[in-house]
Amino acid sequence: MNTKIRVTVWGEYVHEKKNAAVANIYPNGMHETIAEGLRESAGIEVRTATLAQPEHGLTKEILDQTDVLTWWGHAAHGDVDDKIVDRVQARVLQGMGLIVLHSGHYSKIFKRLLGTTCSLTWREAGEKERIWVCNPGHPIAQGIDRYFEIPNEEMYGEPFAIANPDEIVFLSWFQGGEVFRSGCTWKRGNGKIFYFRPGHETYPTYHQKEVRRVIQNAVHWAVPEGSRWIDSAPNVPIEKAAEKIVQQGETLHKPGEAGFR
Amino acid sequence: MNTKIRVTVWGEYVHEKKNAAVANIYPNGMHETIAEGLRESAGIEVRTATLAQPEHGLTKEILDQTDVLTWWGHAAHGDVDDKIVDRVQARVLQGMGLIVLHSGHYSKIFKRLLGTTCSLTWREAGEKERIWVCNPGHPIAQGIDRYFEIPNEEMYGEPFAIANPDEIVFLSWFQGGEVFRSGCTWKRGNGKIFYFRPGHETYPTYHQKEVRRVIQNAVHWAVPEGSRWIDSAPNVPIEKAAEKIVQQGETLHKPGEAGFR
Amino acid sequence: MNTKIRVTVWGEYVHEKKNAAVANIYPNGMHETIAEGLRESAGIEVRTATLAQPEHGLTKEILDQTDVLTWWGHAAHGDVDDKIVDRVQARVLQGMGLIVLHSGHYSKIFKRLLGTTCSLTWREAGEKERIWVCNPGHPIAQGIDRYFEIPNEEMYGEPFAIANPDEIVFLSWFQGGEVFRSGCTWKRGNGKIFYFRPGHETYPTYHQKEVRRVIQNAVHWAVPEGSRWIDSAPNVPIEKAAEKIVQQGETLHKPGEAGFR
Amino acid sequence: MNTKIRVTVWGEYVHEKKNAAVANIYPNGMHETIAEGLRESAGIEVRTATLAQPEHGLTKEILDQTDVLTWWGHAAHGDVDDKIVDRVQARVLQGMGLIVLHSGHYSKIFKRLLGTTCSLTWREAGEKERIWVCNPGHPIAQGIDRYFEIPNEEMYGEPFAIANPDEIVFLSWFQGGEVFRSGCTWKRGNGKIFYFRPGHETYPTYHQKEVRRVIQNAVHWAVPEGSRWIDSAPNVPIEKAAEKIVQQGETLHKPGEAGFR
Repeated sequence: MNTKIRVTVWGEYVHEKKNAAVANIYPNGMHETIAEGLRESAGIEVRTATLAQPEHGLTKEILDQTDVLTWWGHAAHGDVDDKIVDRVQARVLQGMGLIVLHSGHYSKIFKRLLGTTCSLTWREAGEKERIWVCNPGHPIAQGIDRYFEIPNEEMYGEPFAIANPDEIVFLSWFQGGEVFRSGCTWKRGNGKIFYFRPGHETYPTYHQKEVRRVIQNAVHWAVPEGSRWIDSAPNVPIEKAAEKIVQQGETLHKPGEAGFR
Repeated sequence: MNTKIRVTVWGEYVHEKKNAAVANIYPNGMHETIAEGLRESAGIEVRTATLAQPEHGLTKEILDQTDVLTWWGHAAHGDVDDKIVDRVQARVLQGMGLIVLHSGHYSKIFKRLLGTTCSLTWREAGEKERIWVCNPGHPIAQGIDRYFEIPNEEMYGEPFAIANPDEIVFLSWFQGGEVFRSGCTWKRGNGKIFYFRPGHETYPTYHQKEVRRVIQNAVHWAVPEGSRWIDSAPNVPIEKAAEKIVQQGETLHKPGEAGFR
Repeated sequence: MNTKIRVTVWGEYVHEKKNAAVANIYPNGMHETIAEGLRESAGIEVRTATLAQPEHGLTKEILDQTDVLTWWGHAAHGDVDDKIVDRVQARVLQGMGLIVLHSGHYSKIFKRLLGTTCSLTWREAGEKERIWVCNPGHPIAQGIDRYFEIPNEEMYGEPFAIANPDEIVFLSWFQGGEVFRSGCTWKRGNGKIFYFRPGHETYPTYHQKEVRRVIQNAVHWAVPEGSRWIDSAPNVPIEKAAEKIVQQGETLHKPGEAGFR
Repeated sequence: MNTKIRVTVWGEYVHEKKNAAVANIYPNGMHETIAEGLRESAGIEVRTATLAQPEHGLTKEILDQTDVLTWWGHAAHGDVDDKIVDRVQARVLQGMGLIVLHSGHYSKIFKRLLGTTCSLTWREAGEKERIWVCNPGHPIAQGIDRYFEIPNEEMYGEPFAIANPDEIVFLSWFQGGEVFRSGCTWKRGNGKIFYFRPGHETYPTYHQKEVRRVIQNAVHWAVPEGSRWIDSAPNVPIEKAAEKIVQQGETLHKPGEAGFR
């Protein structure tokens, strides 16, 4: 019996092929390094998928067999097919976990699920980021001390234009003076969503052990609970009402007809 | 000085022209009846807009001068132009209130802001609906007793596939045995959103005084607070950082270059 | 290795000894029937505790070994020692799950964690209650159909004066015309809290299989995640600051002194 | 007609009488300086109350005439009478706004309403605090630029052991390397609650214009909406049920008897 958590690591895989600095840090693509970090956790089984693959590597079959999806994209958010975004959204609502990483804040799927622009301020100065734990007991913060530092990172600053999070797990302090809600959770349908800030492509962030630990933790936290409910907006015929009633007044729909969408 | 709340009542205005039963109850369209109900409140100034108008009556100028938008649609959600949905969403995030009525649960704008399917179960039997107040002190429940009844309504039943609401103001009891979260609030950006269940087009619901009172209350509640912030994802150059820092490591962007979207 | 969930079922155990009708339904006390229902689930290990025991059966040792606590009380909320309430609260904040049942809405621990009065309206008429699932995919709703019915129950009606819940899992429809938020979740610290409405002592509710299933589900859902963090409000001395700083301005506390509480 | 917002500024007024440094900055007590800041806003009418007054200056009459209460305490939280805390809590649930300042995080009333310990880490080094706006459109952030700085403040750091806030309006960056959720909102009953971090008594924080502006804004935001509902847990007799029902099964209460509390 396979009881491992099945993770699909999605990577845009564009800058790694165009930019020498990025290629140097992530020679097989960022997704492979993120996947490598997850494979360090015994209970996790990982596959990867990228933008250039047919259906961006996110076929119905693959998503059906995915418990948690991680998402990193930056330069090509607009190239992600809306039909695939629909499909990912549907799976999240069914219960698939979603871990959105760094520049994924501007991905179609994240904006779709949150309903806001997800904008922020930024600076690419390679400055120090210190990530603080807001709740040391939280499952996503396990194995992390009071804080950890990333020596060189892009700055993301408030205001971060997100729907109010359910919980804030991490906050960042930046050397240049900004702060940021770096680890946030939401629930949409039965899917748990976690946004984690670090991961600019010109720095070796996904090689760092604390970053890997947080993503591992987030995967364990985001595993589907309950069952895969698919909503269908069913008509409940009068004769099947829980209490006996009779038709009154005018109707728009004929008996058994589907509703408008 | 004009201190009235400026409301735009949006109506799909399709069934009223096609279906005799609907036309009989709402001869000038449902939007005109909803507008009439709002005009009973001295502090509210109302205009209407409909699907068939250019830009669905929701030009940039009109939205800029709208404090609260009410939305009723049913048969033609798919005909609403995505560009107009983008525009309405942007205004909500800036702070415009949004009151979504009845079958508007399936409107593009509501699903866009909530990130979920917004499905439910339904039955068109003209049964009795009793709407209970969950918080008698809430501004949207003022003037309503412990409950009020609508003699004939369409049933909407749980599960209602929405993002978890901030507050639940009303719950419905249906004669046929169902229940429903009939009055829910959310915030997206600075916009307050209220969903109110009643209003099937084959019944005179928007002529009923309690329904009118709730929509009036909701308009007063949803008035923009604060200011119209428009997020722009600005780059913060190194020389403008609050703390003095110097460039370190590799960069993707040239100085002053805009980020990816 | 013991991997079972360790549940302590707390029962007031007052009416069962005084009232013949209650004693007839729950001859060994309601807590024993609730415990029996939980023991039907293989993964759960159950002990019970009651008001009359020393420390109400909730010693530090027992709470330390409790993953999830269920709470039923009605006539003697005021007899629960505040020191024990403090202890239970501290364990919930550390991560112990808490399932509050029926008239436990007025328990000290529930009011303490929610910050509100938790009042409601009520009627003891033995009427029919129909409990609807608001989210069929939710772990607490597994094994329950669209709804289930309890033939005879006390009515609890809105307004239910609670802090806004994180999620609403169940809503009740009552024969006499009321509705109620019957299954609600909150998080306080790292503890998951679930309130479940049914369970008036003059009816055999805790013998009913759907009620037992929901409580079993809730126990599985409420299991502690993460770690037992105990907050201590530590002073961070200047020399241990993450960034080098020097003392400036006046101080109230001498170096190393504890803060006020 | 008086349409001004009636604010009561509560101050512990202990350190100002014992500590020369504090007395030097706040010769009439911190409450008088906070009140002075609020009086700069035309629409606000202010009175003050202190610990040493009978009933801590918070009689039933005064609270009845208070729209928003601000709370600063530090050394003597334990000396606040539980009966007065009960009274303040009841008024908050009715709709009175509550602004909790700085060391008020450990006040009985704040812990009571949140249900958590409200602990944090701290350091009294007079370091620089930079307070960032998380939502520039939010009413509490009006008149504040992207951030403002307080030259010398006590550090409060995460983890801040609070119930998850509804919204986060401000985050702090500290020179010594910490971050903090400095401006948070919650709702309990109909009362709006805002916690605002700055205000250590050995620094002139409440003389600073940005701090005053935030507290003014918060008062305007926290004004009661709706009505003063007082919950009473009424019994609904069978003959007054909305739907006709008859008594079934056993009962615990005689007709008309009050429920247990």
